[in-house]
Amino acid sequence: MYSVMIARYKYFPEVKTKGMSAAPRLILFTSEHSHYSIAKAGAALGFGKENVILLSTDERGRVIPADLEAKIISAKQKGYVPLFVNATAGTTVYGAFDPINDIADICEKYNMWLHVDGAWGGSLLMSRKHRHKLNGVERANSVTWNPHKMMGVPLQCSAILVREKGILQGCNSMCAGYLFQPDKQYDVTYDTGDKAIQCGRHVDIFKFWLMWKAKGTVGFEQHVDRCLELSEYLYNKIKNREGYQMVMQGEPQHTNVCFWYIPPSLRNIPDGEERRERLHKVAPKIKAMMMECGTTMVGYQPQGDKVNFFRMVISNHAATKSDIDFLIEEIERLGQDL
Amino acid sequence: MYSVMIARYKYFPEVKTKGMSAAPRLILFTSEHSHYSIAKAGAALGFGKENVILLSTDERGRVIPADLEAKIISAKQKGYVPLFVNATAGTTVYGAFDPINDIADICEKYNMWLHVDGAWGGSLLMSRKHRHKLNGVERANSVTWNPHKMMGVPLQCSAILVREKGILQGCNSMCAGYLFQPDKQYDVTYDTGDKAIQCGRHVDIFKFWLMWKAKGTVGFEQHVDRCLELSEYLYNKIKNREGYQMVMQGEPQHTNVCFWYIPPSLRNIPDGEERRERLHKVAPKIKAMMMECGTTMVGYQPQGDKVNFFRMVISNHAATKSDIDFLIEEIERLGQDL
Repeated sequence: MYSVMIARYKYFPEVKTKGMSAAPRLILFTSEHSHYSIAKAGAALGFGKENVILLSTDERGRVIPADLEAKIISAKQKGYVPLFVNATAGTTVYGAFDPINDIADICEKYNMWLHVDGAWGGSLLMSRKHRHKLNGVERANSVTWNPHKMMGVPLQCSAILVREKGILQGCNSMCAGYLFQPDKQYDVTYDTGDKAIQCGRHVDIFKFWLMWKAKGTVGFEQHVDRCLELSEYLYNKIKNREGYQMVMQGEPQHTNVCFWYIPPSLRNIPDGEERRERLHKVAPKIKAMMMECGTTMVGYQPQGDKVNFFRMVISNHAATKSDIDFLIEEIERLGQDL
Repeated sequence: MYSVMIARYKYFPEVKTKGMSAAPRLILFTSEHSHYSIAKAGAALGFGKENVILLSTDERGRVIPADLEAKIISAKQKGYVPLFVNATAGTTVYGAFDPINDIADICEKYNMWLHVDGAWGGSLLMSRKHRHKLNGVERANSVTWNPHKMMGVPLQCSAILVREKGILQGCNSMCAGYLFQPDKQYDVTYDTGDKAIQCGRHVDIFKFWLMWKAKGTVGFEQHVDRCLELSEYLYNKIKNREGYQMVMQGEPQHTNVCFWYIPPSLRNIPDGEERRERLHKVAPKIKAMMMECGTTMVGYQPQGDKVNFFRMVISNHAATKSDIDFLIEEIERLGQDL
């Protein structure tokens, strides 16, 4: 949300004083798989949801750059102004990484703001093995990263990193004399409050700083690598196992492992309406039973035309392979008679 | 900020989908003494700061209702749409309470959204003795209240209360299927996330709930009454004391006690540029010395054409009269040779 506001300020600073109605119709672009906060930002900041254009993705849920360029050209032809592209590094459901370098090329060509939503996947930058999935992130104008997701920092801890120095000040500064007195006895450049959108707030970053001091960069790298190793273990265990069907082919890019469990009663029913309807109810039922038993828990959701499937996400590096084994056994124990 | 968005949605729901440019020029009204977050909301949500109209106040810092009505009429004559009035219950500097009932009458007449910013002063509702200062708050469409200010709840804990049921859902709901699954095994009306602007967030209200359980409503009333009693004690002690000058006449409405300390060297200088310039530097110097000594601390700021003055605010009910006595002694000890 913040990044969209910053982009607006950068290219249309008069909006801060004169309002959106003084600006042309501004268009935001984001993956059809991106987090709902992008559409919400469009509504909240006065752009309108209709001006948030969803981009098509490939079979792994990654934005197709050619589709972005086509939609930019189409918007311009209508007289609109393409303003902002959000590239997601680690989508919520599939854990997909959009091709940032290709998107950055297009943003440069059309003079648009490039934001990278690394809320979930940004933590892979901590890993020498996995950081290549974010190649091109260094070209972004802004990046979000939520250490409260992958890094295990307690809720909430969200960072926004902005390339251009002074732009946060320009966007947000209101110079309230009763708070940001210029005649304090200390160096007031440490008064960062006037740069932010909120006033009184929790020092969320302190928790993360403390963890970083304690674990070190190497500790964080081990954390990330371990989580990805466990999801790979899960993927390899179920990809050819009887009763399982993967939502997409190939190794997951992040720790998101998306799959259907097919109970024996459905295994011989051919693909069609009846099977889909019954399969849609399997994951919610198994999760409900897990909650009643109190043994484990795994999320599910539908996506597009795909019926409810499990999405196993690992962010706790203290999890073990036997935890993964147990999860599989538990799904089978609870689901076999459905 | 949130309340302005809600008002916009209520009267111009199409903004959520089509954007601000589809709406006429919408005008917000707020006191010249109100918190800077109102102007910031105007900028952030796409209204523009120029469309946030500041209202004149009386000598105690309270909005003059006739000025509000005149400015509404003037905006309408220009073809603009008056949308929203913010009445402050407890301004940041003076602790002033705007006359909510008079403002509510005007909002009803012109079909505008009435918001009460009770961030600082809303806590007086806990006190049978002081709650009359918020008379009319029951007529507001929305109210903000920050228990992290007067009630001593650790940062951050901010509540927004909205009269119309369902409007938060209408404003914010994005129905993200991967988060707010309708087929959960429990009553999903407890999934309040889709009503809020943020996604993952801290359960801030829990701290407050726990304190309320522990102290009770009567305990909170004692807390509020005690703080106001201490500020009255300070006011009475310095209002006629040599070397002090009150910023406004009469007992403070909230715990804000605003005053100048006049060092002996300035007492015989007649009012004028030289005295003003020198007086402006007194409060910052005394505060800096307090910080160096580590004894106590009290805020200051200029306001309008008034040079820097102290603003003593009491929100800790464990403070005592001897703490107040010490504050006065300390100001005099540190300031006597300035």
